[in-house]
Amino acid sequence: MALVSETTTRMKGGLDLGGTKVQAVVTDGADVVLGQARRETPRRGGPEAVMLVLADAMRAALDDAGVEAMGLAGIGIGAPGAIDADSGTVLHVPNIDGWDDPYPLGPALAEELGRPVRIGNDVNVAVEAERRFGAGRDFESFLGVFWGTGVGGGIVIDGRHLVGRGSAGEIGHVCSKPGGRRCNCGLDGCVEAYAGRGALEERARELARERKTVLFELMEKRGRDRLTSGVWLRALQARDRVAEELIQRAVQALGVGIGSAVTLLDVEAVVIGGGLGERLGPEWLARIEAAGNEHTFFRTPPTYRLAELGDLGGAIGASLLE
Amino acid sequence: MALVSETTTRMKGGLDLGGTKVQAVVTDGADVVLGQARRETPRRGGPEAVMLVLADAMRAALDDAGVEAMGLAGIGIGAPGAIDADSGTVLHVPNIDGWDDPYPLGPALAEELGRPVRIGNDVNVAVEAERRFGAGRDFESFLGVFWGTGVGGGIVIDGRHLVGRGSAGEIGHVCSKPGGRRCNCGLDGCVEAYAGRGALEERARELARERKTVLFELMEKRGRDRLTSGVWLRALQARDRVAEELIQRAVQALGVGIGSAVTLLDVEAVVIGGGLGERLGPEWLARIEAAGNEHTFFRTPPTYRLAELGDLGGAIGASLLE
Repeated sequence: MALVSETTTRMKGGLDLGGTKVQAVVTDGADVVLGQARRETPRRGGPEAVMLVLADAMRAALDDAGVEAMGLAGIGIGAPGAIDADSGTVLHVPNIDGWDDPYPLGPALAEELGRPVRIGNDVNVAVEAERRFGAGRDFESFLGVFWGTGVGGGIVIDGRHLVGRGSAGEIGHVCSKPGGRRCNCGLDGCVEAYAGRGALEERARELARERKTVLFELMEKRGRDRLTSGVWLRALQARDRVAEELIQRAVQALGVGIGSAVTLLDVEAVVIGGGLGERLGPEWLARIEAAGNEHTFFRTPPTYRLAELGDLGGAIGASLLE
Repeated sequence: MALVSETTTRMKGGLDLGGTKVQAVVTDGADVVLGQARRETPRRGGPEAVMLVLADAMRAALDDAGVEAMGLAGIGIGAPGAIDADSGTVLHVPNIDGWDDPYPLGPALAEELGRPVRIGNDVNVAVEAERRFGAGRDFESFLGVFWGTGVGGGIVIDGRHLVGRGSAGEIGHVCSKPGGRRCNCGLDGCVEAYAGRGALEERARELARERKTVLFELMEKRGRDRLTSGVWLRALQARDRVAEELIQRAVQALGVGIGSAVTLLDVEAVVIGGGLGERLGPEWLARIEAAGNEHTFFRTPPTYRLAELGDLGGAIGASLLE
């Protein structure tokens, strides 16, 4: 009996809270996923509704693993926005409607599931997962770039996360073009203003008024209401000119930001993840590498790798929170 | 006697090897300068000639302090270019004629002066001096920017230097304008290509063909053969339009680089030093701060300070090498 109890208490739960989906995993305490489940992030009901969906996703992942909640040593949540890890409070989430005030997500979920809950930044936990189990495992230092709806980043130096005053790594808001396109954050010319999927879609809608593109056709065919990474990939495969131009422009912006970051940080590697990064794959990774090297000061540029943990990386990383 | 011996062995020598001058100090082991001397960097004779001038400057600083070389616990050199600190070898110095091959500067000077010699990167030792005794002393994290002939930088996070693979902090080669002016390093649009004193002088010579400027008049009046920081300051005070435009453009480039670095590093402070930074003083520091904040993602921007150790900072920092 002692042995069983010891084994079970090493298991952990991880939750990745995204703007469109919630991903839950139950792991062996490291990178073996014993169970998983996915839910849509509720568009209404504010933080309480989100908390209940997180609990539901975790219960489904526990079912999938054949484990009781009490079998988990703890649960971690990777959340976007501003976080107070000590109190488990999420202060504000820009991408979730109605989440404008601080909400004690950690304590509320701990009460709901009866297990201790930790909260961390969604990008940081994904970087930690890649550091320990993924594309970053061979390197003492790397820059993680998560290219999705936004462009998030995390920095590992000497095997440790660089946090600065708490929020280091915002590569999406490095200036890629002074005086350039206005970003959602209010600054001009950010990497994200050219490369984020949100900005790409906005620009595609503008261009679609004047030019032919299959982007929105593909979107409707696939039953989506926005240009997902899969839609962009199909459009590129169909040699859609608008898609090619916009993604190439995104790659240039990523190159400026990544090259500048490498010049500052002198890291061994750059790891590209996120929905678009992973979906577009090795061919576009090579283009990002070429664009990054155009702005890299050092004679020996870093190694470029795709993130390896895919959709589950954020949840696995969250499960590692302690 | 024991007390005297204890006191003397704490004293240290520091040498700052610049492209135009060599600065030597003898310190109490911390920031009290007991003696100092300055020499011109020899333009001919390669690394041996430089080594002999370094030895001469150190002997003069020892004289000034009234101390024998044997009274020093050790001597540090801050050197530009690529360094192998372990062997004390300077591999290559771009700004000193004839220094194209690796030269064992540390061992050679140790033999000449009879004391152990350590070598470090010139910018890193200046940042270390500011961290311990200067404008960085109140902060756990800061970005040091040395605005002179080139634009050097150093990063302190959690009280430690960020080195990456060995050369982190190259803020002068962060991209400030994609497709912009070609930098000496071969990249396009680097901060240094707009803000470095070398680039500024080159551009001023071009503009002087078509426009009126007092820059070169002031240079000749002061008996100089290049546009020193003092010349730029006088020209700005005289409201010279060419000088104002070029320095304002430099500040914009610094703002893009510094803002991007802050967005990545989330440091508490930015410390501006170097010949131009210190000479232009608080008024231009405020303009650099405003330009940096235009490209800074965080709502609470960092504190901007001028470096405090001035011309001796590099040599004091070198004396701290262990």
